[in-house]
Amino acid sequence: MTYKIENLPDEVTIYEVGPRDGLQNEKTVVPVEVKAEFVTRLGAAGLKVIETTSFVHPKWVPQLADAEELLKVVHRKDQVRYPVLVPNERGLDRALELGCTEIAIFGSATETFAQRNLNRSLKTQFDMFAPVVRRAGENGLRVRAYVSMCFGDPWEGPVPIGQVVDVGSRLLDLGCAELSLGDTIGVATAGHVGALLDAFPRERPLAVHFHDTYGQALANVVEALRHGITVIDASAGGIGGCPYAKSATGNLATEDLVWLLDGLGVRHGVDLPALAATSHWLAGQLGRPSPSAVVRALTKE
Amino acid sequence: MTYKIENLPDEVTIYEVGPRDGLQNEKTVVPVEVKAEFVTRLGAAGLKVIETTSFVHPKWVPQLADAEELLKVVHRKDQVRYPVLVPNERGLDRALELGCTEIAIFGSATETFAQRNLNRSLKTQFDMFAPVVRRAGENGLRVRAYVSMCFGDPWEGPVPIGQVVDVGSRLLDLGCAELSLGDTIGVATAGHVGALLDAFPRERPLAVHFHDTYGQALANVVEALRHGITVIDASAGGIGGCPYAKSATGNLATEDLVWLLDGLGVRHGVDLPALAATSHWLAGQLGRPSPSAVVRALTKE
Repeated sequence: MTYKIENLPDEVTIYEVGPRDGLQNEKTVVPVEVKAEFVTRLGAAGLKVIETTSFVHPKWVPQLADAEELLKVVHRKDQVRYPVLVPNERGLDRALELGCTEIAIFGSATETFAQRNLNRSLKTQFDMFAPVVRRAGENGLRVRAYVSMCFGDPWEGPVPIGQVVDVGSRLLDLGCAELSLGDTIGVATAGHVGALLDAFPRERPLAVHFHDTYGQALANVVEALRHGITVIDASAGGIGGCPYAKSATGNLATEDLVWLLDGLGVRHGVDLPALAATSHWLAGQLGRPSPSAVVRALTKE
Repeated sequence: MTYKIENLPDEVTIYEVGPRDGLQNEKTVVPVEVKAEFVTRLGAAGLKVIETTSFVHPKWVPQLADAEELLKVVHRKDQVRYPVLVPNERGLDRALELGCTEIAIFGSATETFAQRNLNRSLKTQFDMFAPVVRRAGENGLRVRAYVSMCFGDPWEGPVPIGQVVDVGSRLLDLGCAELSLGDTIGVATAGHVGALLDAFPRERPLAVHFHDTYGQALANVVEALRHGITVIDASAGGIGGCPYAKSATGNLATEDLVWLLDGLGVRHGVDLPALAATSHWLAGQLGRPSPSAVVRALTKE
């Protein structure tokens, strides 16, 4: 059953964050061979961008302490992109050594989260990112920038739209190819999404990253599609969240997004049964049911 | 944080189905005094319409076998409506005896579900409803009509829009005051919702009833609001589903709906903390966590 809504994009890119944003926020640490199989199965299911791991120090993200080992063993498909998260120049060095062709950096839209997550101020975070983006560019790497807390912040409350646009624009101006607007604590509703997207100049390369903490992610996606967004972040099986933020559970599940896109006739290239089977298998590895409604419905969890 | 979307209604009526549609589909049968407290707390939380119980034969819905007892003990607030579900004239008689002022009947948009749920054909179901609606009207009762399987049917697949419009229109023509379009198995996506609503004449008094089986309910609600719908069904805490339909889990949670409406600046009159506390309490009575994302986030379940 496909029923289109007028003026939506014909096709979108699903930016899969499960192996990185998902697994880094799961209590259960899975072995590197499980991670490698997870990434391989995501690629086989048709995902074209798979954020694979992170070079954030294992002290902060012990779940991904095996980043180098994973990148050595994982099988990379042609025509699939495998970005890795990089916090600083040292992370960039490791990514370059391991043959990565794409990285992601992560900024903050709020002062408190910048202090807590980056150990920088809202203003000085750019000093940390500038050399990373410059050197990445010199080495031919594509850089995506995340902005966290674009809608609400657990310490500061609602985040002014102008502040998000300012942070995001400065990251793009450094030379980033894409800006992912993150609703880290899941408080956004559809009107807020539209207002934020409208506040950016039309030509900016924006992506959206929603959490399902309050069940709003898919309603927000439809609004983003109505505003012409063609890159949507999601996490296979809905795994992960953010360990530094109160109530930050529930990345949007890739399967729930795919169900929506199929209904709307928006192309995405993903094989839903293969993806749901992958998430069902991973849930077994993590020792708990998948939080994705679609995975549970399709696999009778 | 309120960010409006243009041309949405300023205010909606939430039609609360938890005590009936919710509890009839829960495995745990709660005592009548718990049901009475549930209904009382829903009214205290600001809900203006609370479908309270059902006169379907206890052989089919044993969870609501105490309908008469509940209606005798429940405290009915002024300015709150307490409709009850009635399947036939015998149910209407019981509703009249117990002083009910509003009833709901339930039809089917598909042949198979009409046979299975009503023991009637798609065409002959109206013969059963006609005398109920007529006699209800003669006694001053308001009648709502549900239509099940308006988007997909587990046996027949996608349901033709014209067939839904035909069934719904015939129910309204019998004299029903409101028509609730039900996505009984949760397969609808936003474009389909818009297409179905567009297919009805503008002046028809429509309500929408979505399930979260595939996570689509709130995205569908936004689309319904864009089409001018002002009556939205929801179940406190997301309890219930439909026992006759495969995969029919997950009524839209009232709290998730309220969170959305608050974000959009659409008035609804419900006190969210009071409602979430009610659902948290009821989840304890049912012996399992609430399926509502908002209840879980607000009560740290």
